[in-house]
Amino acid sequence: MTAPAPLRLAMVGGGQDAFIGNVHRMAARLDGHYTLVAGALSSTPEKALASGLALGLSPERSYPSYTALIEGELARPEDERVQVVSIVTPNHMHHPVALACLQAGFHVICDKPLTHTAEQARELARAAEQAGVVFAVTYNYSGYPLVRQARELVQQGELGEIRKVIVEYHQGWLATQVSEADNKQAGWRTDPARSGPAGALGDIGTHAEQLVSFVTGLELESVLAELSTFVPGRALDDDATVLLRFQGGAKGILTVSQIEIGRENDLRLSVFGTLGSLHWQQENPNVLLLDRLDQPRVQLTRGGPGLGTAAQRVTRLPAGHPEAFLEAFATIYTAAAEHIRAGTGSEPPVYPTVVDGLRGVQFVEAVIQSQQEGGWTRVSTP
Amino acid sequence: MTAPAPLRLAMVGGGQDAFIGNVHRMAARLDGHYTLVAGALSSTPEKALASGLALGLSPERSYPSYTALIEGELARPEDERVQVVSIVTPNHMHHPVALACLQAGFHVICDKPLTHTAEQARELARAAEQAGVVFAVTYNYSGYPLVRQARELVQQGELGEIRKVIVEYHQGWLATQVSEADNKQAGWRTDPARSGPAGALGDIGTHAEQLVSFVTGLELESVLAELSTFVPGRALDDDATVLLRFQGGAKGILTVSQIEIGRENDLRLSVFGTLGSLHWQQENPNVLLLDRLDQPRVQLTRGGPGLGTAAQRVTRLPAGHPEAFLEAFATIYTAAAEHIRAGTGSEPPVYPTVVDGLRGVQFVEAVIQSQQEGGWTRVSTP
Amino acid sequence: MTAPAPLRLAMVGGGQDAFIGNVHRMAARLDGHYTLVAGALSSTPEKALASGLALGLSPERSYPSYTALIEGELARPEDERVQVVSIVTPNHMHHPVALACLQAGFHVICDKPLTHTAEQARELARAAEQAGVVFAVTYNYSGYPLVRQARELVQQGELGEIRKVIVEYHQGWLATQVSEADNKQAGWRTDPARSGPAGALGDIGTHAEQLVSFVTGLELESVLAELSTFVPGRALDDDATVLLRFQGGAKGILTVSQIEIGRENDLRLSVFGTLGSLHWQQENPNVLLLDRLDQPRVQLTRGGPGLGTAAQRVTRLPAGHPEAFLEAFATIYTAAAEHIRAGTGSEPPVYPTVVDGLRGVQFVEAVIQSQQEGGWTRVSTP
Amino acid sequence: MTAPAPLRLAMVGGGQDAFIGNVHRMAARLDGHYTLVAGALSSTPEKALASGLALGLSPERSYPSYTALIEGELARPEDERVQVVSIVTPNHMHHPVALACLQAGFHVICDKPLTHTAEQARELARAAEQAGVVFAVTYNYSGYPLVRQARELVQQGELGEIRKVIVEYHQGWLATQVSEADNKQAGWRTDPARSGPAGALGDIGTHAEQLVSFVTGLELESVLAELSTFVPGRALDDDATVLLRFQGGAKGILTVSQIEIGRENDLRLSVFGTLGSLHWQQENPNVLLLDRLDQPRVQLTRGGPGLGTAAQRVTRLPAGHPEAFLEAFATIYTAAAEHIRAGTGSEPPVYPTVVDGLRGVQFVEAVIQSQQEGGWTRVSTP
Repeated sequence: MTAPAPLRLAMVGGGQDAFIGNVHRMAARLDGHYTLVAGALSSTPEKALASGLALGLSPERSYPSYTALIEGELARPEDERVQVVSIVTPNHMHHPVALACLQAGFHVICDKPLTHTAEQARELARAAEQAGVVFAVTYNYSGYPLVRQARELVQQGELGEIRKVIVEYHQGWLATQVSEADNKQAGWRTDPARSGPAGALGDIGTHAEQLVSFVTGLELESVLAELSTFVPGRALDDDATVLLRFQGGAKGILTVSQIEIGRENDLRLSVFGTLGSLHWQQENPNVLLLDRLDQPRVQLTRGGPGLGTAAQRVTRLPAGHPEAFLEAFATIYTAAAEHIRAGTGSEPPVYPTVVDGLRGVQFVEAVIQSQQEGGWTRVSTP
Repeated sequence: MTAPAPLRLAMVGGGQDAFIGNVHRMAARLDGHYTLVAGALSSTPEKALASGLALGLSPERSYPSYTALIEGELARPEDERVQVVSIVTPNHMHHPVALACLQAGFHVICDKPLTHTAEQARELARAAEQAGVVFAVTYNYSGYPLVRQARELVQQGELGEIRKVIVEYHQGWLATQVSEADNKQAGWRTDPARSGPAGALGDIGTHAEQLVSFVTGLELESVLAELSTFVPGRALDDDATVLLRFQGGAKGILTVSQIEIGRENDLRLSVFGTLGSLHWQQENPNVLLLDRLDQPRVQLTRGGPGLGTAAQRVTRLPAGHPEAFLEAFATIYTAAAEHIRAGTGSEPPVYPTVVDGLRGVQFVEAVIQSQQEGGWTRVSTP
Repeated sequence: MTAPAPLRLAMVGGGQDAFIGNVHRMAARLDGHYTLVAGALSSTPEKALASGLALGLSPERSYPSYTALIEGELARPEDERVQVVSIVTPNHMHHPVALACLQAGFHVICDKPLTHTAEQARELARAAEQAGVVFAVTYNYSGYPLVRQARELVQQGELGEIRKVIVEYHQGWLATQVSEADNKQAGWRTDPARSGPAGALGDIGTHAEQLVSFVTGLELESVLAELSTFVPGRALDDDATVLLRFQGGAKGILTVSQIEIGRENDLRLSVFGTLGSLHWQQENPNVLLLDRLDQPRVQLTRGGPGLGTAAQRVTRLPAGHPEAFLEAFATIYTAAAEHIRAGTGSEPPVYPTVVDGLRGVQFVEAVIQSQQEGGWTRVSTP
Repeated sequence: MTAPAPLRLAMVGGGQDAFIGNVHRMAARLDGHYTLVAGALSSTPEKALASGLALGLSPERSYPSYTALIEGELARPEDERVQVVSIVTPNHMHHPVALACLQAGFHVICDKPLTHTAEQARELARAAEQAGVVFAVTYNYSGYPLVRQARELVQQGELGEIRKVIVEYHQGWLATQVSEADNKQAGWRTDPARSGPAGALGDIGTHAEQLVSFVTGLELESVLAELSTFVPGRALDDDATVLLRFQGGAKGILTVSQIEIGRENDLRLSVFGTLGSLHWQQENPNVLLLDRLDQPRVQLTRGGPGLGTAAQRVTRLPAGHPEAFLEAFATIYTAAAEHIRAGTGSEPPVYPTVVDGLRGVQFVEAVIQSQQEGGWTRVSTP
């Protein structure tokens, strides 16, 4: 079997000083399915050019803006034109860039939260459907093999009927006021104009929401919010707790924070059913704890005995040779590549799509409404 | 220095088949401050007698009821009369037994939750004050050395101003319907007549509330409740999540459950402040994690370097020789003995009192009111 | 069933400033089987008296020496005379005190290492047999419920044939020269006259050897020693690694140290067989890891599901309510009491005896011979 | 700054069914420093071709043998010729392939153990020096950021003088006889003709030896071996314990096994000095425990506070976003690329070289000699 040529990738955002751009590039490279050929890497044209050159792009494909990128690439012959655009800008640019890319017929891989409003997200979902392209949203934590295992265990009924879900996402890097001069990430993430209406809620709360949805398949019915801004002068929430009620009667707690000193990127999921429970922690991602009623705890390990096909499909290394954040991230990129190559009409591999992105924005909107009105608020679903 | 004679202890409740009675007895014995001389160990007179004999009590001090016990002991000369009564009955008997004991002038050690209503608890607090006796409530988790250390760290300002508290108490032993025939503990704890108006909330939620209060010193301002009964047919909550707002602006989450399969007795406390954080787990009680702003995590160990006087005072063994549940429980008994011997007018050692018991009942009442009314409910404080 | 009266206990050694004496007393008290009535608590008569009074002994039973204790107690009527003597002196006194006690007909509970020489230990074994009394040696780690579980798993063949054993005992408290003035424990333990011919090897290496023997039932065939003294000026080993060959072909590593900074009391056992493996750590004693061939790891917990009768017999609390060092220690005391009451002719409960003590001394002798001669040395067995 | 073009890489070995070949390819891709352009991927020409095509190589650069690869590439113009050859064959081919590559002037990246004999390794070291090329050996565990941190802590004297080192490498995948048909890895690794004179000792013992050498800088003086073959019919050791004596008086234990059921890839290093200790585990590689004398334990995390420049240089992601096996492996590839680009005359970045490969083979030879002769054996050093 001859290997297909790598997909031609462009990136919007992710220039020098950006954190997540390099993560996306490593993820795109790891499995060899992409080659970066173009970019509009910064909102500042000079920086965009310098960033492109530093990444080995040619000067003419180091575009000064995403509109120039789209125009320039459409002018190229199809067999060298960009096929996929990766959007890693601050949140406020996701919508216009993605929409333009979809309309130009490019496949899209976009960071989360997808958009500021559910209306925008719905527009993207419609545009993606009309264009017949792949639209992946990098809810990267769903790429972890043991998150796939957790999902499979739930789907197979190993936990019985789910009663309670606890999802936590603890960070501490915003425990003090961090100026944009010192930390570009902190800067735009705490600015409503660029980050959107939610702070920690949007940045990590959406990851938490998606993880619950991905693993349990439960649909939210209503939420009750307690958003907080602990650091004086901050314009957005830096801590959020949301009580969850799911369709069918399950309940949940989502708590996320960016002011918990000492916590790094401590995303945890616990799912409790009538027959069993499971527990997973992102910082120790190669272990999944499984408790069955009246049985001793079983410790499943990535690559180890007792794993199902969902996890095995996305496992690169034998047990004990830990895989981690970048590998899980790469799994999203690789699934998107597989789907692009197989054709968007084919049965898609497992990866988060624009619909999951929409669900995340709907969650954020409901939470903010609950916060404003007090009390339980109904959640729209895609 | 000559050792004082052990205090003469009576026990009400805690006969054969009871779990917590034997825990109290081991706790009372460990440090040698008590000798059990009398009991009304069961509500059934024959069982009370048999239980007394099995514990080495004389037949005449194996009383058929607590009233008989009080009467019988008051009839004895003071130098052989019971000095302290330990009350380990189901919850509904705490109030009448404790009140009678206080009125008879006995010191009291009582299990939690203290009473069914705050009114009853206040009555006990008043009676204890009038009697001038010691009234300890066995919030045993506050006896752990590293819980004492956590409290001292907060008091010394090591965490700065507290912003957020997460207290969790995960159990799974009531994940299915357990009949009283099979499990006496499950039986009365899920029966409103004996357990009181709260299930998991009363049984373990009060421990969680007290742990927060003990460590942080924060006073609750209001609560928002989400009580659940997941097991069909159960009359009381078996899962409770409570959002907390404290006086001064700190916030918190309290979540307790008895239906989380695989969780044993998993009480955890996280406290986050402006300068640092701490984390402690009851199932691994000899470690306390301390995070200071921009510093690597420090792992304090019971008996190890860096501990303060509060922890050292209640430490029996060198580091690495783990102390656990019974030792922490014994620390409450020992503090009560010390206070009794030093005189109730003296500066009390650290142990939970009837006032802490009252606070717990007030918490339960506010949570239930919040659940009934929906929304945030103000909490009364002692 | 009427409770038997507590056994009348005397203690030799363990006066003020001693560490292990108080441990023995708490262990003796915990389950209520003993009452301390006499002692020769120090080699200094004044200190012996003061220590006795401080413990609540009468002046006339606070003896100035063990010979006085034996004489004094034999002069008392049998129904108030001491029944059991607990020997908690520095090692060099174990042999003379135990021998005298046995000859006087007292049951003995003695600390480890039992004696300086195997010849002395054999003499004690013979004397105990002749006297027809119980002789327990406080290899306390064999009292842990999950150590009992490990042993039962091996006995039931769950691990198949054992191939390899790794036992580790890491401490760091002697990493620097500690003067006796500062630390009485460090003083005598590093003095050959009182500690015997082995330092770390005797103090903690014998615990490690016994743990292997207790859990696996394997008999040592030969040993190869690498003893070290890392702290300048120290007269005894403070670090010892011993390669083990067992009868039947299994092999092992025993490594113990008292100079490993940061390690507290970190005793660990790993046993690897043809069908499975197990792993236990003393500092987290309520968990036992079990790996079966081609199966995911199982985490057994004290009191939890899947435990056998051996562990259940010595379990006091439900799962998640951790038991620890003192409870395990008390289990040895309680087993000795049960054996004394049932009569030494009866089937003994599980506890380490004078024969296990002898085995430990034989191990030490073989290791020292290996160190002196270089190369593998045969081990005598009881 | 314009990015340099990726280095042109060829691979010898690593075709279909091979495990480690794909690991090397992912490692080479991750940071974007290499592009795979040629290969002699299998000893079977048809399989070599098929493997090359499957990896996207052109048919003419999918060579049937390493000799054909060298000849074919030398015939190409220099600006498209392979620059670096990655050797990932079974061990017995390392020497001839590497030697031919060096003589052809290619940079070499070779798996470990480097060769069967020290004489062969010395020949490679000489040839590399004469060729003036980079020769990296993929002791990949030295690429972990916290291993770099450990090394820096030792170099800065934070541990004082090192006294004792414990290195463990626990695996269980060869606990039963595994036929080559079922597991190609197991097949050649247990065949002396292809694996060399050592089994587990060569496969993972050399990793353990290198980790000690890398972190501590200690030079071995002598070793005492206890090699075992537990699985009947196996021709090589599957378990090895080696006592270590280092120049200057430090001591150590190296124990590796492939028959420990349940252990996956459990490499651990503990280093104990006069001022402090450290502990690291490969399966949880983002944490390094540091104990300083009389201080509580500090938990250093990759990317977290308190890390030095050595770790920071090889860190890709913020704290809490775990990096793992592939990232550490990629760090070796990246360092080799940096050294190649900077010129071999420049100060090399940190990576294991042919000299470290030689040291590993010398270690193996000394251990085998010790096993054959019994007793302590002197170790030659490069």
